[in-house]
Formats: sequence, structure tokens, C-alpha cells
Amino acid sequence: MNTFTGLSAFPLTPLHDDQVDEPSFIAMVQRLCAAGVDSITALGSTGSYMYLSREERARVAELAVEHSTNVPVIIGVGAMRTSQVLANIDDAKAAGAEGVLLAPVGYQKMSDSEVLDLYRAATDHSELPVIVYDNPGTTHFAFTKDLYARIAALPGIASIKVPGVPDDPGKAKDHIAAIRSVLPAHVTIGVSGDALGAAGLIAGCDAWYTAVGGILPQPMMAITRAAQSGDHHRALAASRDLQPLWSLFTEFGGSLRVRAAIAEHFGLAQFDCLPKPIRGLDDAQRQKLIKVLLDLGLDETVPG
Amino acid sequence: MNTFTGLSAFPLTPLHDDQVDEPSFIAMVQRLCAAGVDSITALGSTGSYMYLSREERARVAELAVEHSTNVPVIIGVGAMRTSQVLANIDDAKAAGAEGVLLAPVGYQKMSDSEVLDLYRAATDHSELPVIVYDNPGTTHFAFTKDLYARIAALPGIASIKVPGVPDDPGKAKDHIAAIRSVLPAHVTIGVSGDALGAAGLIAGCDAWYTAVGGILPQPMMAITRAAQSGDHHRALAASRDLQPLWSLFTEFGGSLRVRAAIAEHFGLAQFDCLPKPIRGLDDAQRQKLIKVLLDLGLDETVPG
Repeated sequence: MNTFTGLSAFPLTPLHDDQVDEPSFIAMVQRLCAAGVDSITALGSTGSYMYLSREERARVAELAVEHSTNVPVIIGVGAMRTSQVLANIDDAKAAGAEGVLLAPVGYQKMSDSEVLDLYRAATDHSELPVIVYDNPGTTHFAFTKDLYARIAALPGIASIKVPGVPDDPGKAKDHIAAIRSVLPAHVTIGVSGDALGAAGLIAGCDAWYTAVGGILPQPMMAITRAAQSGDHHRALAASRDLQPLWSLFTEFGGSLRVRAAIAEHFGLAQFDCLPKPIRGLDDAQRQKLIKVLLDLGLDETVPG
Repeated sequence: MNTFTGLSAFPLTPLHDDQVDEPSFIAMVQRLCAAGVDSITALGSTGSYMYLSREERARVAELAVEHSTNVPVIIGVGAMRTSQVLANIDDAKAAGAEGVLLAPVGYQKMSDSEVLDLYRAATDHSELPVIVYDNPGTTHFAFTKDLYARIAALPGIASIKVPGVPDDPGKAKDHIAAIRSVLPAHVTIGVSGDALGAAGLIAGCDAWYTAVGGILPQPMMAITRAAQSGDHHRALAASRDLQPLWSLFTEFGGSLRVRAAIAEHFGLAQFDCLPKPIRGLDDAQRQKLIKVLLDLGLDETVPG
């Protein structure tokens, strides 16, 4: 199967005392493999890639590959400076990754030409397949369909991670079809957005690049397999069942903090696992989250 | 004189072959000292701080202090993770800096509490005075007046670098007075924005944190001294004379690229001195810029 299809689970990179909590990270990777995810993307946004040093990132890449079993590993390599991106690609390759995820992260606002330069430099530098990471919420860069086309025409581009799909199913399908019409046939499209996996897969996406799937893989695998088998009704119903969780993502100012709190609640990470100055949820928010998890029966999804 | 008043010039950190071009940087620092600037802030946005490694930043801080003569040096220490900020503060202190400039740079959107935590950590960690760097164009973080007040109440906060002032002089004065009303008396206010120095100083700012002053110090010093002496007419006229330059800043998508091209044209930096993927101006843009510089007689401002 194409590495850049199906469910790619994005684990957290949990910290403890400002160091990467390696045992917790290893256990997360093993848990994702046990859940049968199609790939693991370490050092995505939810893996705090921009908060870690090159050395920390190289180590996380090594751990991810070393502890995954029969599951391809993709590594986030985004950085502010092109040379830093290329160094991260070298580290991902040395670790044994099967692909890299690259977002245009800038401090200065970038032009389309500069972003194209960045992807050209990455694909010229290495034969590791590249996922184009379109994450405007964090990068503040707005891709156009034309820029997708110009980047996807570079040899080495394997996939595009799009930020979401419109709510209306017909519009979602048209949206994905319009993107696909400008891409070479071998370039897959993956949807992001924890609440939008079912809708995205049904709209024609090949992959779900899912952060919540890095923490709650089993319900997200169920959604993915239902959508892949053509059972759209079941996929949408399973996603809709999780609505109380999706609502907390909005209410608590970003899904990362909620995912971290779930990991901490389940013992998958130690308390306060996000890189400071990012704070975790407060006590009241955690109580509300735990109630939602219990109501949804999600404790049962944790093996062991 | 208070270090955090007057004209603080922000030099570029020019690169050559993806390495810090140390001779060019040293010459820039010396040139600013010769022009009589009140302080030098190295590793601001225009000094590409977010594109450089900790080691590169520590080296730039050392060079700035070592080669400045009777001019206090302030060092930009912003980073994504609190522990990285503290490490940069240690390096700035070891270099002999007299203050640090700190922006809330995040990949994940930060809350007010998280930003307050960051400034508390910085001021708890070191006695080096801190300039709060409000630069929404690059950080995408929006300070409120209430947050200014809470941060400025921390011991160790010396100044706030505000992004600009309203066009209308009366509104600009009210705006600065409103900010000042929530700050302790010892906290200065400095205006940013290359085109807004005169207006900001006249509106009551104590300092002009100026990026263009890092490259064209003499005309900016003339504006500053006129404003400080109460000759508002002369300050505004001198700034208005530079309107063709301010217009290029807007037209060419951000003033950093224009400043870099000016430095390259004057031989203050080697060609292509910005960190990739940031591209410099193209040939047509450079020709237009050079014509503006000639028309303004700005070549004469370069010593030697």
C-alpha cells in the first residue's frame, strides 16, 4: 500500500522537566503500532517539532523508527531556515524514516516563490518523499491551488496535507476534486483536523493525517476503515459520536492542549507534558474532559 | 541617560553562504557607533534572530558587544520554548549585553497567561532588563493594554516596543498616553515602524526602535534629535522627505528585504545576505530602490 494513504497517527512528543520523555514517547509509538495505524508521523505540530532542538528532533526520529513495528514512519522536518530543514531531512533519513513532512514555517512572511524554493531545495536534497504540510493555523501561510500544483510537480512530492474540508459534503467533494485536478496522479491528498477525518475521507481524501489518532487510535481507525470500505454512514456516525470531544477542542483553545491532557489522564505522558510556555488544561477543564471521556467510553480504548 | 530611550538601531545579521558574515556585521556595528546611535539592538526581527541557532546567536551577541564603542547593546532573545529563551538570556549576559528584547514567538497560539508566564520566567531568571517586543506582524500575537500592564508590573521590565501609532497626531498622542497610564514610571515606550519614528516620538514615545536606523542611521538620528529637541516640524519634514523609501517598503512586501538590498548596494553586506528561503529583491526592484536612494541623496550617509 502507498505509505501516504490511510490513517497516519501523529503522536505527541511528551516532555518531562523540559526534556523529551523518551519512555512515554516509545510507549506511544508501540501503542500506535498495536492499534494497526497505517503510518506514524512523528514531530508534527502535535509532536511540538518547532519547540525542539535539532538534536532532540534527531533523537525522536530515531526512537520512532526503532520502536515502530511494520509501520512506516514519517518525520516532520520544518524549520525557519532552508539549511535547517535540509539538516533535519538528513537526520530523518539517517534514522530510517520513509518520508518527511514539511510546512513552510516562517518568521517573516513568505512569498509563494520562497515557499516553492523551500520545497525545491528539500526535494533536490534528498530522495525521501515529502508531504506538503498546509497548516495555516500555525504557519500563517496561505497556500493557493496554483502553488499546490507548482510544488506537487516537483519530483519527490508524495502527498499534500490539507487543513480541512468544507462542512457541506457536496462542497467537500468538489473541493478535494479541484485540488486533485491540479496534482500528478501519484500525489495523495490527506485531510487534517481531528473532527474532519470522516468528512475528508468521504470527500475523496486518500489519507487522514490525524493528531487525535495519535492519542486515541482505535476510534479513529474505526472511522478510517469504515470510510475506506465505503460505509460512509458508519464513518460519519462514529465521528458524530465523538462530538462532545470535538467541542472541547474548540472550547479549550486548541486541540493540542486537550490531546496532551488525554495522554496525561491515560498515563501515556507525565503531567505537564507540553513545552513551556504552553500550559496544559487547568483543573476544571481536565475534570470536564475526563467526564466526556468516560461518557464516550473512551477509557476502554487504552490497551493495558 | 536611560538605555531604553532615544534611537536604538537594529542591524541586520547578514549571511554569506549560509553562515553569519562576521566582518560585515562588525562593520555595521562600528558604523552605528560612529553615527552616534543611543543603543544597538542586535538580533531583532531585522537581525533574523529566529533563523539562527543558539550558537550563532551567542556569537552575534559577543561580536555586537565587543565591537560597540560607548553604545549599550541589547540582544534579542526570543525563542519558541521558555528554556531556549532563558539560554539565550544567559548567552546575552555572558556577552555583556545591557538588556534583552523578548517577543512572544509561538508556533501554537498562546494565551495571555502563557505570555505572562514567559516574561515572568525571563525576569525571574536574570536581572538583565527586558524590552517587551510587541510585533504582531511576525508573532501573530495580539497584546492588550491589560497584558502590557501585567507584564510591565514584573520587576526587570524596562521598556515596551509598540508596533506603531495611529496616523492622526492627536490619536497617536492619546494612544501612547493610554499605554503609559498603565505602566510603572520607569518603563519606557519605544515605537517601531520605519515610517513611524517621527510620529511616535512626537506622540510621546521615549525611544525609536528602528530597523531602518540600523542601515541608514544618519537620517534617522536627525529625525530623532529634532523630535527630542521639540522641533516637531523638522522631525516630521525629515521623515516625510523619505516617503519614497517608505513607499518601497510597502510595495516590496516588507521592509526587511528592502533594508537588506540597501545594505548590499552600499557594500555593507554581501549579495543575497538574507537567510533562505527568504529571497532578496529582484533586479527590477533593486534598480527602482537605487534610483530612490540616489534621488534622496542617501548614498552620502555612508561613511567611507
